[in-house]
Amino acid sequence: MRVPLDGLPEKVTIYEVGPRDGLQNEDAIVPVADKAEFIVRLADAGLRTIETTSFVHPKWIPQLADAAELLGVLTRDPAISHPVLVPNEKGLDRALANGVKQIAIFGSATESFARRNLNRTVEESLAMFEPVVERALAEGLWVRAYVSMACGDPWEGDVPIDQVVSVAKRIMDMGCSQLSLGDTIGVGTPGQVTALIESCAAAGIGVDRLAVHFHDTYGQALSNTLAALRAGVTTVDASTGGIGGCPYAESATGNLATEDLVWMLNGLGIETGVDLDKLVSTSRWMAERLGRPSPSRVVQALSPKE
Amino acid sequence: MRVPLDGLPEKVTIYEVGPRDGLQNEDAIVPVADKAEFIVRLADAGLRTIETTSFVHPKWIPQLADAAELLGVLTRDPAISHPVLVPNEKGLDRALANGVKQIAIFGSATESFARRNLNRTVEESLAMFEPVVERALAEGLWVRAYVSMACGDPWEGDVPIDQVVSVAKRIMDMGCSQLSLGDTIGVGTPGQVTALIESCAAAGIGVDRLAVHFHDTYGQALSNTLAALRAGVTTVDASTGGIGGCPYAESATGNLATEDLVWMLNGLGIETGVDLDKLVSTSRWMAERLGRPSPSRVVQALSPKE
Repeated sequence: MRVPLDGLPEKVTIYEVGPRDGLQNEDAIVPVADKAEFIVRLADAGLRTIETTSFVHPKWIPQLADAAELLGVLTRDPAISHPVLVPNEKGLDRALANGVKQIAIFGSATESFARRNLNRTVEESLAMFEPVVERALAEGLWVRAYVSMACGDPWEGDVPIDQVVSVAKRIMDMGCSQLSLGDTIGVGTPGQVTALIESCAAAGIGVDRLAVHFHDTYGQALSNTLAALRAGVTTVDASTGGIGGCPYAESATGNLATEDLVWMLNGLGIETGVDLDKLVSTSRWMAERLGRPSPSRVVQALSPKE
Repeated sequence: MRVPLDGLPEKVTIYEVGPRDGLQNEDAIVPVADKAEFIVRLADAGLRTIETTSFVHPKWIPQLADAAELLGVLTRDPAISHPVLVPNEKGLDRALANGVKQIAIFGSATESFARRNLNRTVEESLAMFEPVVERALAEGLWVRAYVSMACGDPWEGDVPIDQVVSVAKRIMDMGCSQLSLGDTIGVGTPGQVTALIESCAAAGIGVDRLAVHFHDTYGQALSNTLAALRAGVTTVDASTGGIGGCPYAESATGNLATEDLVWMLNGLGIETGVDLDKLVSTSRWMAERLGRPSPSRVVQALSPKE
């Protein structure tokens, strides 16, 4: 039943991260032809922003080692945005050489994760991003910045909101178009999410430039999304099928499933342009390739019972 | 991190349904001694309202055929409420004979489910409840009423809000103390939940007498809970470990997991009196008895990795 709720936006842009954040966190290495088909199917289901791959060194993420090849075989519809993650200037060179028009950079709100993920301090990572963003903007690219560990850090525990906003502000001041606040370990709750968004706005990063990126590790992703929508955010990251962490073997570390998000938005009468049935069928197809059921509740509920 | 959110209550009562709604929907039949231990552990974790069992005929629910035996072996702390589900007058007789002080009756908002679950029309079911509630009140019992299929019905689809409120009103007018609105198939979304609660209030069933009962079939249980809290509800049904439907074999039809609820409420600084670690350890113990992992995200996240 469609029943709107006061104070929510009329329209939400889903920033699909399945092909990149999803697949990079799966054990299986998906063949390039299947990745291309996945992206085409996501576009056919109505998604208009699809983070496609990453130019991170294959030593670190073998799952996405075929980034250049994938971009080569993919027919890119100009109506669809295909951002690619670039970790540094070398990644930017490769993105530019492969005709990429939108990039994403991936920062950390905490020293511990900057050290572990980027092998440098937060300050050094900002210095590394600066020429990437500068050159990307000069080349006319659209640039998104992730700030990860925005609600908590596995080594540091609580991450003060001011610390997140301070890193976010430094990155956005470089000229990025969009900031994605990432609760990488899924510990955040709706009050914290609301306060974080309000603090970003108070620091001059308005909600029109904000996106939220939730993981469902503690089951909080969708209620945090609801809080973010109430706070005025209209861009939400999600991963079709909830891929990016298998809930069966270990803990559920996956992204918010696009289908579970679309179910809520449909019920609220919020426009997304997404065809849920096509998305579910895509997730079932991908689940076969990954060799395990989709962790999305909606995909499970709408799939035929065995 | 604890960050409150404006407009939410300071304190929430968790109405634990694991031993009844959880276990009745599991394939495994848990021995009576384990059920008693389960309930004692839930109380030790701080839960103060624990729906304990049901006097439904064992032919329909063999999982709870040991209701009288369980009540016999259970040491009932007078500080803890132990409601028992009774389907009809025969069930009430058995509840009274076994010293039960709180009962719950289980109605349906739709004709299709009334027919399938109660083998009568909605009108006939109300006529059946009337003497149950009357006698229970005369005996000094506390009476809760469930209205199931409150957000949708598998045979009828959408269930009009007015229809739910009309059934709820008839039941509450019999003198019940609490109404639990049950989204039995988990299809509801936050706008619908808010409208339903507001319509109940407009019909004279104030939020102080309301509880919400969500299933996570479509991943909506926690965001619907957030919406209900915003609408003023302070009693939330949940099932420790999310038991009551296994997400591994078929679709995830389980109840909202108490742990996932407590994680959100803790983060929001809302008092529940529950010790999350004790609850998680209880769920891991019960999962062993049920022979499968807990579907609760929090239980999975806080359990040691294999």
